[in-house]
Amino acid sequence: MKLPEFADIAQAHERIRPFVHRTPVLSSSTMNRLLNCELYFKCENLQKVGAFKFRGACNAVFSMSDEEATKGVCTHSSGNHAAALALAASMRGIPAYIVMPETAPNIKKQAVESYGGRITFCKPTLEARENTLAKVAAETGAVEIHPYNNFNVICGQGTAAKELIEDKGLFDIVMCPIGGGGLLSGTAITTRTLNPKALVIAAEPEGADDAYRSFHAHKLIPSVNPKTIADGLLTSVGEINFRIIQRKTDEIVTVSERGIVRAMRMIWERMKIIVEPSSAVPLAAILENKLDVRGKKVGIILSGGNVDLEKLPFHEFI
Amino acid sequence: MKLPEFADIAQAHERIRPFVHRTPVLSSSTMNRLLNCELYFKCENLQKVGAFKFRGACNAVFSMSDEEATKGVCTHSSGNHAAALALAASMRGIPAYIVMPETAPNIKKQAVESYGGRITFCKPTLEARENTLAKVAAETGAVEIHPYNNFNVICGQGTAAKELIEDKGLFDIVMCPIGGGGLLSGTAITTRTLNPKALVIAAEPEGADDAYRSFHAHKLIPSVNPKTIADGLLTSVGEINFRIIQRKTDEIVTVSERGIVRAMRMIWERMKIIVEPSSAVPLAAILENKLDVRGKKVGIILSGGNVDLEKLPFHEFI
Repeated sequence: MKLPEFADIAQAHERIRPFVHRTPVLSSSTMNRLLNCELYFKCENLQKVGAFKFRGACNAVFSMSDEEATKGVCTHSSGNHAAALALAASMRGIPAYIVMPETAPNIKKQAVESYGGRITFCKPTLEARENTLAKVAAETGAVEIHPYNNFNVICGQGTAAKELIEDKGLFDIVMCPIGGGGLLSGTAITTRTLNPKALVIAAEPEGADDAYRSFHAHKLIPSVNPKTIADGLLTSVGEINFRIIQRKTDEIVTVSERGIVRAMRMIWERMKIIVEPSSAVPLAAILENKLDVRGKKVGIILSGGNVDLEKLPFHEFI
Repeated sequence: MKLPEFADIAQAHERIRPFVHRTPVLSSSTMNRLLNCELYFKCENLQKVGAFKFRGACNAVFSMSDEEATKGVCTHSSGNHAAALALAASMRGIPAYIVMPETAPNIKKQAVESYGGRITFCKPTLEARENTLAKVAAETGAVEIHPYNNFNVICGQGTAAKELIEDKGLFDIVMCPIGGGGLLSGTAITTRTLNPKALVIAAEPEGADDAYRSFHAHKLIPSVNPKTIADGLLTSVGEINFRIIQRKTDEIVTVSERGIVRAMRMIWERMKIIVEPSSAVPLAAILENKLDVRGKKVGIILSGGNVDLEKLPFHEFI
């Protein structure tokens, strides 16, 4: 099977450019002083649907021929990919059928519906998801777009790192979180081409460390009962993603739940932006000294900003 | 007295460019669809010290001659201007003496200290602030930099609207909140020159409506016991500011406290950025139908992002 190359990512970038935000890259002098390094945050929390997932979904949807596209697209997703695919499909004027675990956060269900996605709920197991999706695909004839184990999705995700390096120049280290590996595989391909001297380092929650274990065992080891507040990172690494990650990633490190919360809070307070726990995982690795960043220039891709703000005491302000 | 002109703002922009962030301008398709208009948010919550105030403070500090500057600067401020002046002074290597009401939010006290400002606390009345400041100025020889009623501060604040229009073209309406009037007076001067057909509309909390009343009475009417969660807007309009606002502002509208909270929540949820209540006041005016924005292109300056996140249930995530 052909693996994506940087030329595919560059093509994806041209394809999706009219539809995606070129998100800003932010930095905080205070954080840099505290952490003794130069951090640049690529703000995919400010991307459409609030996550980098829109890049991949958009590239997958707009890569299809008109004939393929007529019956729509379908997927199973715990959230951000679902919303992303729904919006991309609605931009192309085709239906999106989304299989979602009934336990998905409300904010993500509502997002999918608001973008016109047609949801089928299922039990929160991989088996239930896959069976339900197979049924939906058979009934509708829609093309499955996997959230990460998909050539075109990977190419779309690789455009975030491309913009980061285009905007801020070369880095010593480029970091992102790892769940299924769509973002990491795209980021690694881009970085190896545009910034070959940079280390590509991914961060993963200790409670969902299948990528860490797979990377060090040199074979794919799926998750069993992963548990983390970083709900975007519960999925196991995909096969295509793993093949790319093995070749083009320098290190995968793990972080504690407490570290994720601490990093998330620091980003909210210091950067004045809202990120979901998954986004905070690379910074957590820095706070927990899982890699040496002293004096280094580090690019971090913030993956998304979809947290349920229902809990917040907005009413106390009134 | 000479009032600032656009040429002064353009000069200020050159002066402060090496020190300030060129903040991004964000928009949300979902919000635009909901509100039936095209909104562009100039994100001064992402400015250094988390507020537009850094622009004015920076211009004031770097406009001083070396001789003037040696003994430092001083001010009284409820928060963002204090942090801004402290940082600007530390960048120039001169002391900043800050008189703060003892009731100021913790986050703002800590910010001033972290930027090297030297704080003198006083009672939370205008009289106490002014007396304490006079004493501090007499003892140190520092030059007072008023938070808004100051030529150079106004010029600095006018650079936010300059960047907004440079980045996103002409608008039908340009909006900002009004407290002391530093941001509004600068914004109005810039907009009248770069975008003369745009309406300049300010929004103010009902509970601190001295600018609204002054504007419609054509004379300065100071606040008496203002009360609003938009703590950046409690101050009364300054004299220089009012003279500019009278000439160059089209309308001032007021909003409810509930509207401010609703708008703030919408910005957090939809835009994925953290804004303080003062920033949400212009959007509150739109949500409360205080002006007609249907089909219009509207630029809104988000003034700052310094809210005390202590209250948030981060611990519940662990």
